[in-house]
Amino acid sequence: MDERVREHAAVLVDWSARVEAGDDVVCSVGPDAHELAVAVAEKLGERGANLLATYGSGEITRAYLRAHDGEFDENPAHELALVENADVYLSLGGGRNTSATADVPGEQRRSYNNARSEIRETRLGTRWVSTVHPTRSLAQQANMAYEEYQAFAYDAILRDWEALADEMARLKELLDDGSEVRLVSNDTDLTMQIEGRTAVNSAASVAYDSHNLPSGEVFTAPYATEGEVTFDVPMTLRGESVRNVRLEFADGEVVGYDAEAGEDVIGEILETDEGARRLGELGLGMNRGIDRYTDNILFDEKMGDTVHLALGRAYDACLPDGESGNESAVHVDLITDVSEDSRLEIDGEVVQRNGTFRFEDGFEA
Amino acid sequence: MDERVREHAAVLVDWSARVEAGDDVVCSVGPDAHELAVAVAEKLGERGANLLATYGSGEITRAYLRAHDGEFDENPAHELALVENADVYLSLGGGRNTSATADVPGEQRRSYNNARSEIRETRLGTRWVSTVHPTRSLAQQANMAYEEYQAFAYDAILRDWEALADEMARLKELLDDGSEVRLVSNDTDLTMQIEGRTAVNSAASVAYDSHNLPSGEVFTAPYATEGEVTFDVPMTLRGESVRNVRLEFADGEVVGYDAEAGEDVIGEILETDEGARRLGELGLGMNRGIDRYTDNILFDEKMGDTVHLALGRAYDACLPDGESGNESAVHVDLITDVSEDSRLEIDGEVVQRNGTFRFEDGFEA
Repeated sequence: MDERVREHAAVLVDWSARVEAGDDVVCSVGPDAHELAVAVAEKLGERGANLLATYGSGEITRAYLRAHDGEFDENPAHELALVENADVYLSLGGGRNTSATADVPGEQRRSYNNARSEIRETRLGTRWVSTVHPTRSLAQQANMAYEEYQAFAYDAILRDWEALADEMARLKELLDDGSEVRLVSNDTDLTMQIEGRTAVNSAASVAYDSHNLPSGEVFTAPYATEGEVTFDVPMTLRGESVRNVRLEFADGEVVGYDAEAGEDVIGEILETDEGARRLGELGLGMNRGIDRYTDNILFDEKMGDTVHLALGRAYDACLPDGESGNESAVHVDLITDVSEDSRLEIDGEVVQRNGTFRFEDGFEA
Repeated sequence: MDERVREHAAVLVDWSARVEAGDDVVCSVGPDAHELAVAVAEKLGERGANLLATYGSGEITRAYLRAHDGEFDENPAHELALVENADVYLSLGGGRNTSATADVPGEQRRSYNNARSEIRETRLGTRWVSTVHPTRSLAQQANMAYEEYQAFAYDAILRDWEALADEMARLKELLDDGSEVRLVSNDTDLTMQIEGRTAVNSAASVAYDSHNLPSGEVFTAPYATEGEVTFDVPMTLRGESVRNVRLEFADGEVVGYDAEAGEDVIGEILETDEGARRLGELGLGMNRGIDRYTDNILFDEKMGDTVHLALGRAYDACLPDGESGNESAVHVDLITDVSEDSRLEIDGEVVQRNGTFRFEDGFEA
C-alpha cells in the first residue's frame, strides 16, 4: 500500500474525527475507495473503535431511485437507528464515474432527500468528516493523469494542519472583530454584514467545527448583501458546466443573475426556496497545497487566492447560540479567483490584496 | 448487464426474502458483488423497500482485526441498532480473494465473533438470505474458468424453486414420519435418531425456513448417532485442505477421528466445545443444477447425490417448539458422495439408493 494512503487514514481518524477507544464509527466506502477504507480500518482497530462499513455507490443509488415509484418512506428506521447510535461518521468518497447518477430525475432525487431529513440531521450531529480517495474518475474530472492527481490530492490532504490552524486563526480574529466585508475584484463589488457572526477556522477537524478533509478555509455567515459579484472559477453543478456566473444583490437577496454557461442551473437553484436567494456562507480559501482547479468543490473552495460564496443554508457554527441563520434546502458554493486586481476589506481596511493576506509575506496595503 | 444477474436479483428479493413495500432491508455487498447489488437495488426500488447497503470486505476485516488489541466491545450499539431495526438482511458475497483473511489469528477472530453474539442472533431473526455473486476468485477456488463458473453458478441459482420445493416435500414427509436413519456407503455405516425432529424443505426461501441461495436440500437435526462415516468430498476448512475425514460415533458423540489431510483442523473443531462432538444436522442434497464440487459449502452441500452431516449447532426449525437441540459455537458441514454403492434407509426401508430417491425415476429398491 502507498504510504500516503496510510498517512491519509491517520490524519482522518486522529486529527479530523478525533476517534477514541469505544467510539461507534460508521465508515461509508465508495466503490473505488477500498484501499483507503482498508487503511482506515487498520487505524480504527489500533484505536479500539467499533467499525461498521457502509457502501456508498452512485450506481446503486441510481438503480434504486430510478426503479422506485417516488413515494419514499420517511427516515427508514434501520438507517435512522444506525446514525442515532453512531459517534463518528466518515465518508470515504471515490467511485468509478463522477456522473454515475446523471440520469436520475431531479424530482426523484429531491423526494428521496426530503424523506431523509432526520437521518441527515442526525448524521450531521455526529463527528462527521467527508474525504475522498484519489481515484481515476476524479483524476479524469480534473483533466489530470492518475499519478499526477494522486500527488495533487495528497498535497492538499497531508498538510501540517496544526500550523495552518494557527495561521487561519489570525483571519478568523479579523472576521470575528469586523462588521462589514467588502470584496472588490474584476466585475465584483460586493458588501456583506458579518456583525455578530462567528467565523469558523476550518482546519479539517471536528475540534474546529470543520468536517472536510482537505479543508483549509475560514468561513462565516454573511447577511444584508449588496452589490455585484462574478464567479470566474469554472465548475460542474448538477451535471452541467457553469461559467462566469454573475449575481446582483439588493437587501440581501439576489435580484438579478446571468452566466456564460449553466444559467438555467443557477435559475433552478435560486427557485428552490426563499433562502436559496440569500447567501449562507462567505469563505476564504487558505490551503496553499491546492494549486489548481479540479472541478471538485471539496478542493476548489479551499484553494489559496480564492473566495467563495454559497447560496442557501448557513452553518450553525457561525451563528449566535440558538439563533438560526439563513435556511434553505440547498447550499451551493460558487468561487471567484482573487489572485489579481482584487482586494478584500473589513470595515474599510484591506486584509487581503491579490490573494495575499495582511499577515503573510509580500502583502501590500 | 448480464440478464442472469437481474434474474438472480429477482429470485433473491421475491422468492427468497419475500421483500414487500416498506421493508427495511440491509444489503451486505462484497467488493466484487457490485453488479448483483445494483440489480438488487433496482428490485428493492421496484418493491418500495428501504435499502441500506453495507460493505462486506475481507480485507477491511483483516486490517481491523490484526490492528485491534483483542479486547472487543460487546455488540457495538450502532450495528446492533441497525440489525434490530432491519426486516430483511441480504448477504451478497463475492470478494477478490477467498483467502483475504488467511493471516488473521484464529483467537482474534473468535474473540471478535464472541463479542458479537447478540448482533448475530438478531440478524438471524430477520428474513436473512446468503447468496454469492459469481466472481473470478470463486471461479479460481473452483478450478474453473470465469465464464464456465458463471454458467455453473446460475444453473444452481436459477432453478424452478417452486417445482423443487414440491419434490423436496416428499423427502421431508419421509423424514418427518421416520424415527431412525441409516446411511450405508463405502467406509460408512451410520445410524441416527430423528424421532420428534422436523425436516426443513430448504427451497431457498425464508417461507421454507431456508436462508441460502442456492439451496436445494432437505435437512433435519439427528441425535444418538452410532457408527462410522467417511466424508470423501474434498473441501477447504479454515484455510486448510481437508480430505477423507473419518468419524466414529458412540452414544451420539465422536469417539475417534482421522483424515488423509486436515486432521489437525478437525481436531481443533472437535475441541471447540461439547456440542462440537455431536451432530447438528443431517442434510440431503437435491439441487441437480449443481453437477460438481467447487470447494464452496454454499453449493457443495446442496448437490444431488450427496449427503452432509454437520458437527455442532442444530437449527431451531428442526426442533420441537421451545426445545433447544445440540448447541455449539460451530456448525461445520462435511460431505459424502452417495452416487455409488450407497443406500439411505429410514426405519429399515431404502429411500435413496446410489443417489436416486424412491420417488425419482430409476430408483431400485
